[in-house]
Amino acid sequence: MKAPADLILLPQWVVPVEPDGALADHAVVIQDGRILDVLPAAAAQARYDAAQTVTLPSHALMPGLVNLHGHAAMSLLRGMADDLPLMAWLNEHIWPAEKRLVSEAFVRDGTLLAAAEMLSGGVTCCNDMYFFPQAAGEAFLQAGMRATLGMIVLEFPSAYAVDADDYLAKGLALRDELKDEPLLSFAFAPHAPYTIADATFGRINTLAEQLGLPIHTHIHETADEIHDSLKQYGLRPLERLARLGLLGPNFIGVHAIHVNDAEVELLAQHGCHVAHCPSSGLKLASGIAPVAKLLAAGVNLGFGTDGAASNNRLDLFGEMRLAALLAKGASGDAAALPAAAALKAATLDAARALNLDSRIGSIVPGKRADLVAVDLHALSSQPVFDPVSHLVYVAGREHVTHVWVDGTLKLNNRRLVDLDADDLATRAAYWRSKLIAKGQS
Amino acid sequence: MKAPADLILLPQWVVPVEPDGALADHAVVIQDGRILDVLPAAAAQARYDAAQTVTLPSHALMPGLVNLHGHAAMSLLRGMADDLPLMAWLNEHIWPAEKRLVSEAFVRDGTLLAAAEMLSGGVTCCNDMYFFPQAAGEAFLQAGMRATLGMIVLEFPSAYAVDADDYLAKGLALRDELKDEPLLSFAFAPHAPYTIADATFGRINTLAEQLGLPIHTHIHETADEIHDSLKQYGLRPLERLARLGLLGPNFIGVHAIHVNDAEVELLAQHGCHVAHCPSSGLKLASGIAPVAKLLAAGVNLGFGTDGAASNNRLDLFGEMRLAALLAKGASGDAAALPAAAALKAATLDAARALNLDSRIGSIVPGKRADLVAVDLHALSSQPVFDPVSHLVYVAGREHVTHVWVDGTLKLNNRRLVDLDADDLATRAAYWRSKLIAKGQS
Repeated sequence: MKAPADLILLPQWVVPVEPDGALADHAVVIQDGRILDVLPAAAAQARYDAAQTVTLPSHALMPGLVNLHGHAAMSLLRGMADDLPLMAWLNEHIWPAEKRLVSEAFVRDGTLLAAAEMLSGGVTCCNDMYFFPQAAGEAFLQAGMRATLGMIVLEFPSAYAVDADDYLAKGLALRDELKDEPLLSFAFAPHAPYTIADATFGRINTLAEQLGLPIHTHIHETADEIHDSLKQYGLRPLERLARLGLLGPNFIGVHAIHVNDAEVELLAQHGCHVAHCPSSGLKLASGIAPVAKLLAAGVNLGFGTDGAASNNRLDLFGEMRLAALLAKGASGDAAALPAAAALKAATLDAARALNLDSRIGSIVPGKRADLVAVDLHALSSQPVFDPVSHLVYVAGREHVTHVWVDGTLKLNNRRLVDLDADDLATRAAYWRSKLIAKGQS
Repeated sequence: MKAPADLILLPQWVVPVEPDGALADHAVVIQDGRILDVLPAAAAQARYDAAQTVTLPSHALMPGLVNLHGHAAMSLLRGMADDLPLMAWLNEHIWPAEKRLVSEAFVRDGTLLAAAEMLSGGVTCCNDMYFFPQAAGEAFLQAGMRATLGMIVLEFPSAYAVDADDYLAKGLALRDELKDEPLLSFAFAPHAPYTIADATFGRINTLAEQLGLPIHTHIHETADEIHDSLKQYGLRPLERLARLGLLGPNFIGVHAIHVNDAEVELLAQHGCHVAHCPSSGLKLASGIAPVAKLLAAGVNLGFGTDGAASNNRLDLFGEMRLAALLAKGASGDAAALPAAAALKAATLDAARALNLDSRIGSIVPGKRADLVAVDLHALSSQPVFDPVSHLVYVAGREHVTHVWVDGTLKLNNRRLVDLDADDLATRAAYWRSKLIAKGQS
């Protein structure tokens, strides 16, 4: 007698990430939002009685991409200021705009817009850091997208909170409220060493250990922040964090561009994770992270889009390809970050950084069904010698046709299933008009 | 009385490249394949009586992209060998495959496949270098795409020609045959200093001066070729070419990655052009061209995809974005290669390198109508503050909806007008099977 299943997917190739490589003529069976089985297509039809079967005749089916660093709501600031260095961009454009406009409504609308873009491009989970994380959480739940909400902390006041204690209290209250939502998880998100005092880092570290949560922070993005830290603390930021006891397997350092060999070792020895954001690092002229060295030392790596204000795409296919190319060009080693490793970094390794690798990141029975179908039928994808190479070097988000999160269809033949695109465009236009009006006042 | 016109285009914005910036509510009027007028939309309706009007309500209309360096037929080798350095990749994979399989039929099919990909992605002109340029020329004419055919020269024999004299004779005969084709132009294409002897360079230089044609060659792609040249000639390749008299305003150097400050000056003083191929340079770990320095010195720059075997996309939107990002990240100057300059490099400046800037590269009355409509309506493009910034940092080839070459519609609502996609896919699969069979023998 056949076993019941909700859904059988029959792609041309399954690219499970665990193990490397592509399986031709295989099926993925889904039940209750979970991956029940991965097996030869013929055997699947004999063994399971599925409510629905979806044939994906020219597609590779892969795990959903995990965006390891973003500020989703900043999608509303996309292209507002370009061709400027980080501190001028922050001080003269982004922070003033945020100070005037950021509110719960801004964050909800911006996060929904970002979720729509990410889901359409095969991103099923993101690690978010922004003001009003409760509004971001509402948006991710409405979009049905998986997210790690950053309990953001800064020392300076914003519309969201008045001081570090207030940020922390609000973040922890939010976690208490939403910690049972199956699509949401939480991380402490102290913004950066240059915006957080030692005492606050200490408190966060204690809480993170007690609650078993990741710490997500910007680190060594620019040379200037290192100079300033040396002046203020007599220590480089990573040294300072190490002394404060923050480095460990729950630490996700974003950017890690200006890290010397000793710091690469430090990150490796402590089992830290790096969220590599290649587009953002280039666009703000911060530089290029030493990815080949980080990988050689054994540092776990994922990729992030950063916010749409410094990228200006929330396109993890683009980041994965750029990371794979840049690792080679910057190191002089054409074998650095090969295709299979890049795909693993963008999925399973990023999930590991978020402590979600037992639930997502690969197509393995027992994991949640966060899946993406990429159509390799287009002429721009022909011929296909190796689907794994194609997913990294040839495919773009434009080839994503279907996306499931937790077994639920979110993108069907390139159309968002349950987000209203016209409504989101209207909201984006509304915030644009507010930004322009404020900019002129 | 109204003047007659074939076509009026009414986009949301015209981005003419000359001058910089975007014109809202403007029309582009086309007659006999030529841009007749660019004027406010209301005035256009009053002044012209057009056979057809196309409204592009959420689109930016820009000049067609010019791919300043490619090997179109290598689309058939897309993804055949990855994650390898240049010389291993050439010697162990690409050159053996080419030796066994390259023929007129291979080049025609591969060039058609590449033309389909390029046209779909907004590339209306490319500067091609490959064996059997007559077959490439046939393919470009069949596709209705503008191309500069490289009269390729190598010292070593191939299926196409036996020695440098033979290559040259065949190239010149082809030019004689096709020089009146309005979509085609010609360049001498000596492969590289490491594959061409002094005497051959001398002959090409004389011919190029007599015929007023560009010289298109790979230059300073790797550190190794410079070491080898020092050993063989006692000169770095650019020094050698300078002594041979090859450097001048008709010289297009491809890659120019390993150029020192004196060589940047040398290229600038001679009015040379550089075809910057950022993806290929990174993927083969050749390195990163010093774009900010080249531009500061006044070297004219365009972008190239290189062949699909080392990229693996023929995506000039991708190259333009990557070039703009990489120029910043590699130089540490976030203002390097700003959006408007990147767009100009990808269109008008590349046309200038090909000596085609009086005919194409900008939306200016009198030029041929090579035009691309980019839809900025998608949620991933919202909001729009500056369409020029969006064309470089946000848009991808996936947003291209309409393409005209010489006034003729080649892509209509994302569909190729007159190329048979199924037939091209079948041909790609045929050559793939031959490549795999040969690889195993």
